[in-house]
Amino acid sequence: MKRTLGVCYYPEHWPEAQWEEDAARMAALGLTWVRIGEFAWARMEPVPGRYDWDWLDRAIETLGRHGLKVVLGTPTATPPRWMLDRHPDMLAVDAQGRPRGFGSRRHYDFSHRGYRGDCARIVQAMAERYGRNPHVAAWQTDNEYACHDTVLSYSPAALAAFRDWCAQRYQSTDALNRAWGNVFWSMDYDRFDDIGLPNLTVTEANPAHVMAFRRFASDEVVSFNRLQTEIIRRFSDAPIAHNYMGRITDFDHFDVGADLDIASWDSYPLGFLSDRLEASPEHKRRFLRQGDPDLQAFHHDLYRAVGRGRWWIMEQQPGPVNWAPYNPDPLPGMARLWAWEAFAHGAEAVCYFRWRQAPFAQEQMHAGLLRPDSVPAPAHDEAMTVVQELAGLPDQGTAKADVGLVFDYASAWAWQTQPQGRDFDYFRLVFHIYKGLRRLGLNVDILPPDTADLSAYPLVLAPGVATLSEPLLAALAAHRGQSIIGPRSNAKTVEFATPVPLPPNLPGLDATVMRVESLPPDVPVPLVGGGNLLHWREKVETSGDVLERAEDGFAALIGAGGLHYLAGWPDETALDRILTAACGRAGLQVEMLPEGLRRRDSDTHRFWFNYNPVAVEWAGVTIPAAGVHWVAL
Amino acid sequence: MKRTLGVCYYPEHWPEAQWEEDAARMAALGLTWVRIGEFAWARMEPVPGRYDWDWLDRAIETLGRHGLKVVLGTPTATPPRWMLDRHPDMLAVDAQGRPRGFGSRRHYDFSHRGYRGDCARIVQAMAERYGRNPHVAAWQTDNEYACHDTVLSYSPAALAAFRDWCAQRYQSTDALNRAWGNVFWSMDYDRFDDIGLPNLTVTEANPAHVMAFRRFASDEVVSFNRLQTEIIRRFSDAPIAHNYMGRITDFDHFDVGADLDIASWDSYPLGFLSDRLEASPEHKRRFLRQGDPDLQAFHHDLYRAVGRGRWWIMEQQPGPVNWAPYNPDPLPGMARLWAWEAFAHGAEAVCYFRWRQAPFAQEQMHAGLLRPDSVPAPAHDEAMTVVQELAGLPDQGTAKADVGLVFDYASAWAWQTQPQGRDFDYFRLVFHIYKGLRRLGLNVDILPPDTADLSAYPLVLAPGVATLSEPLLAALAAHRGQSIIGPRSNAKTVEFATPVPLPPNLPGLDATVMRVESLPPDVPVPLVGGGNLLHWREKVETSGDVLERAEDGFAALIGAGGLHYLAGWPDETALDRILTAACGRAGLQVEMLPEGLRRRDSDTHRFWFNYNPVAVEWAGVTIPAAGVHWVAL
Amino acid sequence: MKRTLGVCYYPEHWPEAQWEEDAARMAALGLTWVRIGEFAWARMEPVPGRYDWDWLDRAIETLGRHGLKVVLGTPTATPPRWMLDRHPDMLAVDAQGRPRGFGSRRHYDFSHRGYRGDCARIVQAMAERYGRNPHVAAWQTDNEYACHDTVLSYSPAALAAFRDWCAQRYQSTDALNRAWGNVFWSMDYDRFDDIGLPNLTVTEANPAHVMAFRRFASDEVVSFNRLQTEIIRRFSDAPIAHNYMGRITDFDHFDVGADLDIASWDSYPLGFLSDRLEASPEHKRRFLRQGDPDLQAFHHDLYRAVGRGRWWIMEQQPGPVNWAPYNPDPLPGMARLWAWEAFAHGAEAVCYFRWRQAPFAQEQMHAGLLRPDSVPAPAHDEAMTVVQELAGLPDQGTAKADVGLVFDYASAWAWQTQPQGRDFDYFRLVFHIYKGLRRLGLNVDILPPDTADLSAYPLVLAPGVATLSEPLLAALAAHRGQSIIGPRSNAKTVEFATPVPLPPNLPGLDATVMRVESLPPDVPVPLVGGGNLLHWREKVETSGDVLERAEDGFAALIGAGGLHYLAGWPDETALDRILTAACGRAGLQVEMLPEGLRRRDSDTHRFWFNYNPVAVEWAGVTIPAAGVHWVAL
Ligand SMILES: [Zn+2]
Ligand SMILES: [Zn+2]
Ligand SMILES: [Zn+2]
Repeated sequence: MKRTLGVCYYPEHWPEAQWEEDAARMAALGLTWVRIGEFAWARMEPVPGRYDWDWLDRAIETLGRHGLKVVLGTPTATPPRWMLDRHPDMLAVDAQGRPRGFGSRRHYDFSHRGYRGDCARIVQAMAERYGRNPHVAAWQTDNEYACHDTVLSYSPAALAAFRDWCAQRYQSTDALNRAWGNVFWSMDYDRFDDIGLPNLTVTEANPAHVMAFRRFASDEVVSFNRLQTEIIRRFSDAPIAHNYMGRITDFDHFDVGADLDIASWDSYPLGFLSDRLEASPEHKRRFLRQGDPDLQAFHHDLYRAVGRGRWWIMEQQPGPVNWAPYNPDPLPGMARLWAWEAFAHGAEAVCYFRWRQAPFAQEQMHAGLLRPDSVPAPAHDEAMTVVQELAGLPDQGTAKADVGLVFDYASAWAWQTQPQGRDFDYFRLVFHIYKGLRRLGLNVDILPPDTADLSAYPLVLAPGVATLSEPLLAALAAHRGQSIIGPRSNAKTVEFATPVPLPPNLPGLDATVMRVESLPPDVPVPLVGGGNLLHWREKVETSGDVLERAEDGFAALIGAGGLHYLAGWPDETALDRILTAACGRAGLQVEMLPEGLRRRDSDTHRFWFNYNPVAVEWAGVTIPAAGVHWVAL
Repeated sequence: MKRTLGVCYYPEHWPEAQWEEDAARMAALGLTWVRIGEFAWARMEPVPGRYDWDWLDRAIETLGRHGLKVVLGTPTATPPRWMLDRHPDMLAVDAQGRPRGFGSRRHYDFSHRGYRGDCARIVQAMAERYGRNPHVAAWQTDNEYACHDTVLSYSPAALAAFRDWCAQRYQSTDALNRAWGNVFWSMDYDRFDDIGLPNLTVTEANPAHVMAFRRFASDEVVSFNRLQTEIIRRFSDAPIAHNYMGRITDFDHFDVGADLDIASWDSYPLGFLSDRLEASPEHKRRFLRQGDPDLQAFHHDLYRAVGRGRWWIMEQQPGPVNWAPYNPDPLPGMARLWAWEAFAHGAEAVCYFRWRQAPFAQEQMHAGLLRPDSVPAPAHDEAMTVVQELAGLPDQGTAKADVGLVFDYASAWAWQTQPQGRDFDYFRLVFHIYKGLRRLGLNVDILPPDTADLSAYPLVLAPGVATLSEPLLAALAAHRGQSIIGPRSNAKTVEFATPVPLPPNLPGLDATVMRVESLPPDVPVPLVGGGNLLHWREKVETSGDVLERAEDGFAALIGAGGLHYLAGWPDETALDRILTAACGRAGLQVEMLPEGLRRRDSDTHRFWFNYNPVAVEWAGVTIPAAGVHWVAL
Repeated sequence: MKRTLGVCYYPEHWPEAQWEEDAARMAALGLTWVRIGEFAWARMEPVPGRYDWDWLDRAIETLGRHGLKVVLGTPTATPPRWMLDRHPDMLAVDAQGRPRGFGSRRHYDFSHRGYRGDCARIVQAMAERYGRNPHVAAWQTDNEYACHDTVLSYSPAALAAFRDWCAQRYQSTDALNRAWGNVFWSMDYDRFDDIGLPNLTVTEANPAHVMAFRRFASDEVVSFNRLQTEIIRRFSDAPIAHNYMGRITDFDHFDVGADLDIASWDSYPLGFLSDRLEASPEHKRRFLRQGDPDLQAFHHDLYRAVGRGRWWIMEQQPGPVNWAPYNPDPLPGMARLWAWEAFAHGAEAVCYFRWRQAPFAQEQMHAGLLRPDSVPAPAHDEAMTVVQELAGLPDQGTAKADVGLVFDYASAWAWQTQPQGRDFDYFRLVFHIYKGLRRLGLNVDILPPDTADLSAYPLVLAPGVATLSEPLLAALAAHRGQSIIGPRSNAKTVEFATPVPLPPNLPGLDATVMRVESLPPDVPVPLVGGGNLLHWREKVETSGDVLERAEDGFAALIGAGGLHYLAGWPDETALDRILTAACGRAGLQVEMLPEGLRRRDSDTHRFWFNYNPVAVEWAGVTIPAAGVHWVAL
C-alpha cells in the first residue's frame, strides 16, 4: 500500500481569504489528507436548527480543488453553548459529584439520551450533505473519546442508564446480588432503582459493582459511537474512523472499533513520556526530546489490532505541545522518525496536528507545521522529507509478527478496581512485557482477548488478563507454540469473584496460586537465575516443570508442554532471560538491541530507529541521533 | 486464666450445607470462640420489620453443637439499603460537604436519631431472641467504630446535635463566646442555632470551636454505643465487647469502654506498618512481613487499660490483607508470634479474621485460616501450634508493670486541631516514648488521663497531655517515684486556651515555657549529652535542676524531686539516655534489647519475640526469625 | 524623615482595666503608632444597626492620653454572624463550588452588592465618629485583601458581576468571542448571560476567559476598597493605608494603591520562607530563623512603588508565628534587623504584630512583644534598641536607585493561567532576578508596568512581562541606558493571544521567538560562557548581537544598542555574569556579596545586614549573626 501524509486543519479558525493559499501549500508539501470539522458545531449550527453549511462547502471545495482528500469529523465533542439550554442535565458529573461544565470541550454525558438525539440530528445533516461529496474521503466520529477522563460519569443520566443496564444484564436483583456477593456487608438490593453508582461510598465499593459500572460505561461509548456510524453509512461509502488517545483504557477500543473501518490514534510522544509513563528520572531525561522508544510502537500494534489491520495516526505531534507538565522541543528529525515508525508498523496515513499553530485559545502553545506567522516550523520540512522518501520506496505491507500479545481492556478496569498493591497497573505490566519483546527486536501483534486462533504465533503472552475468555482458553489448549500466561491471569470470574478452583486453572497445567503479595518497589524477590520479581509475586503449588524459581524456594515460572505460567512481575533482567529462553524454545531469532535503538519490519524492509540523543553504531552502520535507517529484507 | 483462640465467621456467606463441616473443623482445630452476625442485618431483617432469625438460630445451634462459643455482633455497622428509604438524611457528610453514601459499610451518622431508633429496635430484637441462648457467650456492639474516618460528620443531623450539645455544655452563648475567645475575629454567636460546624471556613476555624466539636463527636459515639449496651444487658448476662481498630483516636475509647465488659481490638500488623506508621523506609522494609515490633504491644497495653484488665484480639491478621498500600505475606511463624505477644500482654482470647477467605466482594483478597477452596492456609497450622502450646503451659496472669504511661484521646484531638508544626502528632509522640521503654525491656501499663493513683509505678510518663486533669495533677504531686511530664504537657486549658500562669505549671516545679518552636526534620537541636531534640522544642525559664541541656544553652530536662519536665521531642539517642537515667533513679532494671527483639512478662513467664527476618542470639539462646521463646520467671 | 515604630493592639481582647497600663508601657517603649479596630465589628455593632462606640472611644482616648497615635482599621474583613442572616449569599465560593463559610475571617465575596452596602454603612459610621479625632492619625481599610485565597470567587454574586464586567468591556458577544478566540472549540456565546466562570470545566478553560476573570476579580478588589476610601476622605484628612500580605499577586496592588496614601505590608520573614518560597532545602535550613535575605527587601521596594514613595510595615513578625508548616523562633537580633532593613528601604514606620500574645482563638501560638502573661518577649527589647538607635541617627531619606525592575500583576495572572511548564511562575522569576541584583549590592526600584519614563535608571529589567504597555514600550525605545527584556516578555496581547508578528517585537531589536520549551529542573540548557538556562528557554531568530549563546547554538542574550532580550531563565551563575556585564555597560559599580550578607543605602548611610547564623567579616568589619552595621555615605 502507498503510505500517505496528512494534516489537521480548522478553516473556521482563519480568514476565508487564507484558505486558498493554505490548500496550495498543503498540496505543494505533498500531503494527501486534510482532517476538518470536528470542533465546528457552533459554526455549522449557530442557532438551534439553523444550519450554516456554506462556509464548509467552500472549505471542502477549496481543499478538493487542490487535490486534497478530506477527513470530515462529526462535531459532537464540542456541543455549542445553546445545547445546555436544551439539555441542562446533559453534563457529566465527576466522582466528587461536581458537574463538568461548559467552557472547554467534551462537556457531555455519554448516557444523556437528549444529547444523543441532537448528535444524531447533526450527524445526519452532515452525512446527508457531504456523504457523496467527492472530496470527502473518510469520516471521523467525535474526537478522542475518554480524553479528559470523560467516560466515567456519576450524573443522574448515567445512574438511570446504569440501572437499565443492570436490569438487562441480571434480569433480577436476586441474580445481581448473588453475582456481586452483596451479602458480604448487607449490600443487597431489592429493586434495580435502589442501585447507586459506586462513588462517594464510605469505604471502597464492592469491586463487582465497580466492574459492572466500568462495563456499562464502556458500552455507553460503544453505543454512542454506533449511533453515528449507522447514520453515516446510510449516506456515505467512505470509511469511518475514530481518533483514539494514547494510554487510555477507559472503554473497550475493540468494541468501538468493531463499528469502524479504520482505527486511528493521536500520537504525542513527548507529552506522553512526561505525563503518563512510569519510568525512571534517568529514562525520562534521556528521552525527553524523543519520547519513549516503545510507546508509539505499542500503540501502533494495538490500533492495528483494533482496526483489524487498517489504522492511521490522526494527530502526530509536530513540535512542543501545551499540555504536559513540561513541554520540550523535539530533537530535529523526530517528526520524520515518528512517521516512519508508524509506516513500518503498517500505518496507512500519518496526519500531523496541526497545519498552523493557533495564536488564540487553549492550544496557542501547541506547535503546528507552520508557526502562527505562517513561517514553516521544523516539522514542515521533515514532513517534506518523508514525502520524498515515501516516493522513493516501493509500497509497503505489514510484516508477519513473531509474537502475539493479548491486550484486554476489561483487565485494565479490573486492576484499577482492585490493584491490591499501589504499583499494580495493567497497562504498565503489559507495556513492560512489550518493551522486553521489543528489546529483542521482535515484531509483535496485539491480540484481542477473545482471540480464537493462535496458530500464527510461535510465541504468545497473556500477562494480567483478569479473565481468560472461552475462545482464548481453547486456543491456548490447542496452541502448538510457546505461551506465557500470567502473572495475575485468569484470576477473576467475569463477575469479579475469585474462581474456585483457584487460578490460574489453565488447561493441562497443574498450578494453583495459593496466595499473592504486592510489594513496595524496594522489596524485590530475587530469582535463583538472577534478576527479581517486583511489585507482585504469587506463591504457587504445582507439579509442573519449574523453569524459574525464587531464592525463597517458590516457583516463578512453571511449564507443561509449551504452556507456562509466570508467577510474578519480572524485572528487566529476569524478563530478558525469560523471553530469550521462550524465543529459543519457539525457534525465534532474537537480537538484544542497545538502549534506545529499535527495529521493526515491514513485509519488504527492516527499519531501524535511533531514539537516542546521540548516534548509535549497530551492525556496521552508524545511525545518527533521531535517525532512521532501512534495508530491504 | 486459660487463654483461648477463636475465629470470625460469616455463615450467611456460605451455603448452609457447609456450616456443619466448618464447625467440625473449627472444633478440631481447638478454637473456642466464633464471632458471627455483625454484617448480616439484611439477612436478619430483609424487609423493614420482618425478621428472619431461622438461619441464625440454626447457625448458632450448629456451632454450639460442636462446643463452640458464639460472640454475637449487632449489625448496626451495615444498615440495609431500605434503611435509607426510611431515613434519607441518615448519611454522614464529609468535611467537603459530600454525603457518604450506601454501597460499602458504616454509612450512617452517629447523630441521626431516627437511625438510632432502628438500631435500638434490631438490638432489642436480637437480645430478646439470643440473650439467654446457651451458646451465645459474648456480645459485640457494631464493628470498628471510627473506621473509615466515620466519627466526624458535617451533616444536618450532626449540626443539630452539636448545637444541643453546646447549649447543654455552655448554657449561654455569652459563656460559649468567652470560653472560645470568639471576640478574636468578631466570631461571637447570639443564638446557639447560629453556630456552625467547623468545616469549610475561609481559613482555620477557632481551635476552641474545633475542640468542642471533637468532644461532641466522641460523646456521640459513646451514647450510640451505650444505647446498645443498655438494651443487651436487659436480656443477657454475657459480657459485651466492642472491637476497636488500630491507631484510631477519633473518639475516647476509655469513655466507650466504661460501658463495656471487655475491650477488644483488630490487629493487622502488616497493614498498619504499611499504612499508618511513621517510620523510615529501612524500618518498613525490614519489618515488612512481621509488622512493627512495638505497635501490637502498645495496643495490647492500651486496650488492657480500656478494658480495665479484660481484653481480646477480636480480629487477628492471618495472612495478606487487601487494604494496605502494599500487602505482603507474613513471614512463616508470625500468626503464632502475634498470638503469643497478645497472650503475654494478658489477652483472654485471640480470634483470627476470618475462617475462610471470601471469594467475592470487597475483601476477596483478605486471607483467612482457610483458602477460598477450603484448603488450610499457613495460619491455620500456626493456630494449631498455639492451641497445643497453650495446653502445655499453666494458666497465665498479667504481670505487674514497671512503668505507667498516660494516654489521653483528647490530646490527640488537641494536637490535630493545632499541630503548630507539620510533624507534631500525639500518637506518634506517645508511641515514640513507648518504643523507648520497650527497647529497655520494660513492662508498661497505659494509664487513662484521669488516673488518680500512681503509687504502683516507679516511673510515670505523660508526654503531650494537653490538659493534665485534676486527679492526675494531684497524683503527680503525691507520687514518690520518678515522673517525666512533657513535652507540650498541660499546655492548654480544657477550653483550648493558653493558661496563665504559663505552662506547664506543675506542682513543685518552677518552670515556665516562654515560647516553643516547631522544626523541620532536618533541623535538630543538639543536646550537650548527645542526641537531639527533633520536631519540637520549648524554651523554658526555670530555677529547677537541669538534667539535660541543649547546646544553645536552654534547658531540655528539668527536675525537682522526682518530677521532671521534658522540654522537647527527644530523638532515639537522647530518649534512651533519658529513660535509662530515669529507670536508674527509679530503681528499675533495664536491658537494652537489640533491634527487633522484644520481651514481655506474664505473671509467671518471660517471653521473647523475635520480629527480625533473621535469627537473633540473646542471653545464650538463639531465637529463629519470627520465633517466640519463653522461660519461667 | 523621622522613622517610627508601632504596634498592633486589640483593646477588645483585654479587660478594660488593662488598657491604661498597656498604653503606658507602649509609650515607655517609645512606640509612636497603635493600630486598632480591624477585627472588632461585632463589638462596634453587636446588633444590626445598633452601634456601640463607647468602648472604642475610651480605648482611643486612653492611647491618645499617652501620646500614642492611632491607626484605625475598618472591620470589614470580619463581618459578624448576623450579617449572614441579612445576606445569606454573601459568601465567596471556591473553585470546587463550596461556599466558604463563617467561623474565621474574610468570609465575604467582593462582588456582593448587599455586603458592600453594609460595609459602606459601618465605614461611614466610623468615619463620622473618628474622622476628626485628634488621636486618629491614619486609617487602614479592611485587612490583608486576598489573604486565604479570597480574591477569586465562583459565587452567583461573582458570576453576575463578571457578566456585567464583560458586557462593559466588550460591548457585544461578537467582540468577546473574537477577543477570546471562542471559535476554537465552539465556545461562542450568544448572550452575556450565557457566560460562566472558568471553573469546573472538563479540561482547561480558554485562557483568555481566565484572564478576563482575573482582571475582573482584581477590579472588584479595587472598587471594594475605593468605596471605603471615598467615604473616609469625606470625614477625615488622615492618610489611608491598606496592609498587603507578602507574595500575594491575586489583585493589582498598583490599582488599589492609587486610591490610598500609604502602602503597607505585613512582613513575616520566617513564615514566608517556610511557606511560600521556592528554595533548596539547604537554603531553607540555613535561613530558618532569619528568613530569606532578599524577600523582605523585595517587598519593601515593591510597596515603596505601590505607595508612590510612602510605605510602612503594618505587621512585623516579632517571634514564632502559628501558621507556617514549621514555626521556629527567630534568631536573637532579627526583630531589630528586620526593622532596620525596612528603614533602610525607606519605611516610614514599622509596627510589630502584636502587643501581647493572645491566649485564645486562632492565633494563640503567634508571639507578641509581650508574652500572654505580660512579660516582655525578646522582640520587646529589640524594639527598644531600635527606638534608641533611631534617636541616635539623623533623619533618613530614600536613596536614588541604580536599577529599575518592572513588576506587573497581570503577568502573574497570565503565567498562572498558562504556565506551559510546571516550574514557571512569574513572581519566582522576578524574584530570582531581584536576588541577582541584590547579590551585587544594587539599590533597586520596582517599577509599575505602565512606567513612561526610564531616564533615571542606568539599568532596567522587565522579565516575564506578558504584555509590554504602550508607555513602557515608548520609554524603552527612548531609553539611553541598558535594558534587559525577557524571558517570555511581550509574549501575549492584552486579550491573551499570541501576537503576530511574533514576540518579543521590541523597538529596534530584530528578534523573533520561533518556539519555546519548558524543561524539568534536571535538564539544564548549558551556555557557552558557563551556567545554564533552567525551566524555560526560547529559540530565537535574530540578526542582533548575540551576547550569550547556548551550547546548542541558539542565542540566549541578544542586543541592539542598549536594549537586550534574554531568551531563557538563567541560573545563578549565568545571571551573575549577565547582570555584572550589564552593570559594566551601564557604568554601575557592583560588589559581589557573600551568602546572606546584604546591603542597602538610604540617602545618607549605607547599611549592612547579616542574615547568616554566623558572623561575617566584610570590608574589614565583623558583623555578628543577625547583625546590622551602618556607615555614613
Ligand atoms: Zn470539488
Ligand atoms: Zn444448642
Ligand atoms: Zn484625647
